[in-house]
Amino acid sequence: MKALTVVKIGGNIIDRPAALRTFLLDFAALESPKILVHGGGVLATELLEKTGVPVRMHEGRRITDEETLKICTMVYAGWINKTVVAQLQQAGCNAIGLSGADADSVPATKRPPAPVDFGFVGDVAASRINVPALSLLLDNGLCPVFCAITHDAQGGLLNTNADTMASAIAAALSKTYYSKLLFCFEKGGVLARPDDEHSVIPEMDAAYFEQLKQQQIISKGMLPKLDNAFAALRNGVAEVYIKHARHLRSDTGTRCIFN
Amino acid sequence: MKALTVVKIGGNIIDRPAALRTFLLDFAALESPKILVHGGGVLATELLEKTGVPVRMHEGRRITDEETLKICTMVYAGWINKTVVAQLQQAGCNAIGLSGADADSVPATKRPPAPVDFGFVGDVAASRINVPALSLLLDNGLCPVFCAITHDAQGGLLNTNADTMASAIAAALSKTYYSKLLFCFEKGGVLARPDDEHSVIPEMDAAYFEQLKQQQIISKGMLPKLDNAFAALRNGVAEVYIKHARHLRSDTGTRCIFN
Repeated sequence: MKALTVVKIGGNIIDRPAALRTFLLDFAALESPKILVHGGGVLATELLEKTGVPVRMHEGRRITDEETLKICTMVYAGWINKTVVAQLQQAGCNAIGLSGADADSVPATKRPPAPVDFGFVGDVAASRINVPALSLLLDNGLCPVFCAITHDAQGGLLNTNADTMASAIAAALSKTYYSKLLFCFEKGGVLARPDDEHSVIPEMDAAYFEQLKQQQIISKGMLPKLDNAFAALRNGVAEVYIKHARHLRSDTGTRCIFN
Repeated sequence: MKALTVVKIGGNIIDRPAALRTFLLDFAALESPKILVHGGGVLATELLEKTGVPVRMHEGRRITDEETLKICTMVYAGWINKTVVAQLQQAGCNAIGLSGADADSVPATKRPPAPVDFGFVGDVAASRINVPALSLLLDNGLCPVFCAITHDAQGGLLNTNADTMASAIAAALSKTYYSKLLFCFEKGGVLARPDDEHSVIPEMDAAYFEQLKQQQIISKGMLPKLDNAFAALRNGVAEVYIKHARHLRSDTGTRCIFN
């Protein structure tokens, strides 16, 4: 079975040109086949402010109305995706930028409007991920670079969580590849003490995750990432790591383990 | 030799949702393999105004500074490209949205800064168009949908003329396909009298084009389109038409002929 690496890079790295450049050089040097999924960063929020689109939130999560979807698609699928692709091309990696609409690669379903209407937000339709199309690209030396915009197959675009997208893509491809999923961001891994960069938990299984959750040791922002990590393991992904973007190619960070 | 249709759709159609939808349904019904290249429309100009980026022109042509490039990439590669792809997917056409950076499909060179510095504007490097990558997509039932953003292979994105891009792509693929190029826009074809929609010139060869140019019968906006049309014919494209978007699938409009 051929090995595949799926890397998610967080918005915090995207926002810093020097950190992004270093990361992309490292990513370009990773063995193929590989896939990159990128988050959003602050540019969408800045543009929403500049153009006077009100930012609406519900319990810390953005509500995506029509204007917000338009701006998110412009920023994620347009500027960020093409900037990343151009830099990877320069680094010798034959990147091809995609949204989930392209090649019907990642279909999604609009989240139901009750109890809270989050607007144009999509949940990945994991069973309908287009594995043949992705395999075609991968097996021909191309490197898919995904933004977290999907489609509902009814002509509509949807804003999607990039961690979930990376997890679902890695899982869908785990039937044909030995797949490894790396969540890269601005911290060294899952921290036992949120303020202590040296408290990276090297290994975590689902039981330990539950225990830390109950003890409220895991920070709020880390919870969905870990949920996505364990979902990937449950759905066939062989290895999952949460790590610092600058340690992409070393065996550091938190390894999540299936048991 | 397999037949290929390359269609350019103008910004004027992109700007009108109902006209765009009708056109995309017609395009989806065209026989494959096929490629769509889309123009920009007014959205970029609107967003430049909203965000306070000054629009700088030289003899009717936009100068693309860094902020303008960012906005053009957001609008063309982001919103327009993904909207078109999602609508084609709905219509049963397996579209895959691309910029010239994706899969290194259409490399370009930055236009020299003298005599006029147009900024981040690229001229297509016709000999370096990635024919194997495009053939891979086409031969596997995918339909490339291009925005007119290219890259310099040095990590930089460039704003490019969509007519030129369509012409160069059709020409590059004419070695492996019998290629047909259709420039679709909001008029019935090349008009002998600019104000008379019924004065469509049915057929035009290079000599006739020269003659009409000298008589200043061809409108200013039509000149570069016709230059691109005849360049395509000189470079191996079998058939070239300039026609109304709503007549995509009928034999109307102006046929340009090589001689």
